[in-house]
Amino acid sequence: MVYLSRIEKFNAAHKLWVEGWSEEKNFAVFGKCSNKNWHGHNYTLHVTVKGHPDPVTGFVMDAKLLSTYMKQQVIDQIDHKNLNLDGDFLPKGMQPTSENIVILIWQRLEAALVGQPCQLHLIRLWETDTIYAEYYGIQ
Amino acid sequence: MVYLSRIEKFNAAHKLWVEGWSEEKNFAVFGKCSNKNWHGHNYTLHVTVKGHPDPVTGFVMDAKLLSTYMKQQVIDQIDHKNLNLDGDFLPKGMQPTSENIVILIWQRLEAALVGQPCQLHLIRLWETDTIYAEYYGIQ
Amino acid sequence: MVYLSRIEKFNAAHKLWVEGWSEEKNFAVFGKCSNKNWHGHNYTLHVTVKGHPDPVTGFVMDAKLLSTYMKQQVIDQIDHKNLNLDGDFLPKGMQPTSENIVILIWQRLEAALVGQPCQLHLIRLWETDTIYAEYYGIQ
Amino acid sequence: MVYLSRIEKFNAAHKLWVEGWSEEKNFAVFGKCSNKNWHGHNYTLHVTVKGHPDPVTGFVMDAKLLSTYMKQQVIDQIDHKNLNLDGDFLPKGMQPTSENIVILIWQRLEAALVGQPCQLHLIRLWETDTIYAEYYGIQ
Amino acid sequence: MVYLSRIEKFNAAHKLWVEGWSEEKNFAVFGKCSNKNWHGHNYTLHVTVKGHPDPVTGFVMDAKLLSTYMKQQVIDQIDHKNLNLDGDFLPKGMQPTSENIVILIWQRLEAALVGQPCQLHLIRLWETDTIYAEYYGIQ
Amino acid sequence: MVYLSRIEKFNAAHKLWVEGWSEEKNFAVFGKCSNKNWHGHNYTLHVTVKGHPDPVTGFVMDAKLLSTYMKQQVIDQIDHKNLNLDGDFLPKGMQPTSENIVILIWQRLEAALVGQPCQLHLIRLWETDTIYAEYYGIQ
Repeated sequence: MVYLSRIEKFNAAHKLWVEGWSEEKNFAVFGKCSNKNWHGHNYTLHVTVKGHPDPVTGFVMDAKLLSTYMKQQVIDQIDHKNLNLDGDFLPKGMQPTSENIVILIWQRLEAALVGQPCQLHLIRLWETDTIYAEYYGIQ
Repeated sequence: MVYLSRIEKFNAAHKLWVEGWSEEKNFAVFGKCSNKNWHGHNYTLHVTVKGHPDPVTGFVMDAKLLSTYMKQQVIDQIDHKNLNLDGDFLPKGMQPTSENIVILIWQRLEAALVGQPCQLHLIRLWETDTIYAEYYGIQ
Repeated sequence: MVYLSRIEKFNAAHKLWVEGWSEEKNFAVFGKCSNKNWHGHNYTLHVTVKGHPDPVTGFVMDAKLLSTYMKQQVIDQIDHKNLNLDGDFLPKGMQPTSENIVILIWQRLEAALVGQPCQLHLIRLWETDTIYAEYYGIQ
Repeated sequence: MVYLSRIEKFNAAHKLWVEGWSEEKNFAVFGKCSNKNWHGHNYTLHVTVKGHPDPVTGFVMDAKLLSTYMKQQVIDQIDHKNLNLDGDFLPKGMQPTSENIVILIWQRLEAALVGQPCQLHLIRLWETDTIYAEYYGIQ
Repeated sequence: MVYLSRIEKFNAAHKLWVEGWSEEKNFAVFGKCSNKNWHGHNYTLHVTVKGHPDPVTGFVMDAKLLSTYMKQQVIDQIDHKNLNLDGDFLPKGMQPTSENIVILIWQRLEAALVGQPCQLHLIRLWETDTIYAEYYGIQ
Repeated sequence: MVYLSRIEKFNAAHKLWVEGWSEEKNFAVFGKCSNKNWHGHNYTLHVTVKGHPDPVTGFVMDAKLLSTYMKQQVIDQIDHKNLNLDGDFLPKGMQPTSENIVILIWQRLEAALVGQPCQLHLIRLWETDTIYAEYYGIQ
């Protein structure tokens, strides 16, 4: 089993905010991330697939094709967007934390990769250069 | 003359948008950066001062003090904020491009550094890891 | 299960030296790391916890709280210190290799995180940008 | 069990090309990587070994010795070389993809590390800063 | 005057070799870079332009347009190519050192940027992560 | 004029401490950097030379030769050393700040490069990833 990883980047705005909580409670729990006018990040997304290198091409999967799926399923949906407001990437009421986003990215890519000769292994999302979240699917 | 640089980081939301232009014209000029619901970045700020190392301390300036000025004048003003909406860092109607922001940061830090035994030399602002702006003051 | 990682940095001096060995033997085993007047590093510490994102906050753990524990248990103890001489972070006679330090950091953070809704998963310590050690606890 | 990793770099030329396929088919499968006059990369190689820190030295393995093995088994063989043409690192007809190369590096280092008080754990090879492959041996 | 920089990457093969010199002399001067079967690099290209931010858009130049010029004039010409053999980017007999390439990139981009409201300021080319060349035009 | 830069790294211990000042005054001025048992850093050194690329070799200077000078004049003197105690790199009583060290490195390299077909242009020394000093010689 060999693991192949591809990295893509996107920029997005978000805020962490629970509707029904006061501004004070939101600030107490989420700190500066609850700023009502949003803030944003340069996100770095790693996607890892695993499989056996094809004996002819040497590919676990064509890295350009993996990149294409990442763009279609993730980058085109949320790059230069507001994670809370734009589109339907995030279910209503779900906080756009990196912990939640890696699960959403997993679900979209797992579906997109059906039929590929490899399996999705890992979603890693860097939110800043000191915080990242990882998800390996349901285990 | 020796140059001393200090780096701090902040995260912010913004959009590039000219009031009075249609959504189409804004998109034609600013592309995805005109998304009406904002997007955001992890900004990396370099500030360089120049002077002669003190013969006793070896400091052009205490780097911790430079960091304090950067925090008071910049980070505390715009970290986890919306550059267009929050506070008065950005004059009304000015686009929050990195080219404009480096000038604003220069003006604030130049004023704050009056009385220091060194001069402000350079503001460099990384907006993403492929774009940055620099300003050396009026020359 | 989602994994959340936080990075903090510290700077420290150390040397690798076995009391009771000659300077020659120490040099033969530890090379330049045995320099009797010490040398030092900028260490980069990754700490990973694992758990289920809270359905309301989206947090496996508040990353700022994880940072606070890292500062209390590690950074405040050894930043700008001598790993061999200062404080009691390192048991007497233990070499301050990254391999040993990751175990010590694990022990301190595992104790500090008791009561949190997540578990400690990984300590990764970069000693230089070409060497790092990792520890996942007793398995 | 503690994991110790060491990083080394090398530069090499290669192309992805199946003999017996037309230029068109090679381009259809491998894209720009099939350029008949080669292209190249700065590769970054991580090697991870696992074991118990020696109670006296604190070493899972001397990182300098691990570096020496990496140089003898990998860097000296393929640095500033053409992966397809030079030497016998790559078996005839095998594509020099990162997925295949990590397996070849594993085989060489596993043999070289026999007798060391630790086991080879992971080969990670960065081909560009957006693509890397990993191999943990036969599992 | 504000400086705006954009970064793009490309991968290429090359060798340093003077026709008419023996293999021994080429090796004596160029070392491993003279390997007759080529080697290669992941190049990182910084291009800096300078000008005054437009009072309406805040742009010294549209960074996406700068990227387009970089792709047309440089990346499309030499990415995944052999700098010595492919196309006419490098004049015959000129060594593909980073020092020579930055001048060639300057010449192409200076011509392409005619008519833009800013001037080309700097070409910086990283060949590895320990070597880079810079050119500011004829001064 | 083309600029060529080379990067090398070293690790060292130091402290900032004025003999004749009390521990309190040293702490007031130098903060944690005055820790009496030392601390240390992974330093990253950039050296830039400028000149005209040789018409045959394309070199401003052989980057390997520049690396050799950096090793002889700097790395061999202070790598894995204590900047305050070991050798004579630092004149007695001079603080080992990055601002002072870049001047010392300039003096040594300028002397070593006499006879080369290029001139020393810049010494840049990163002390941490948020602080660096630069020196362009006496201007």
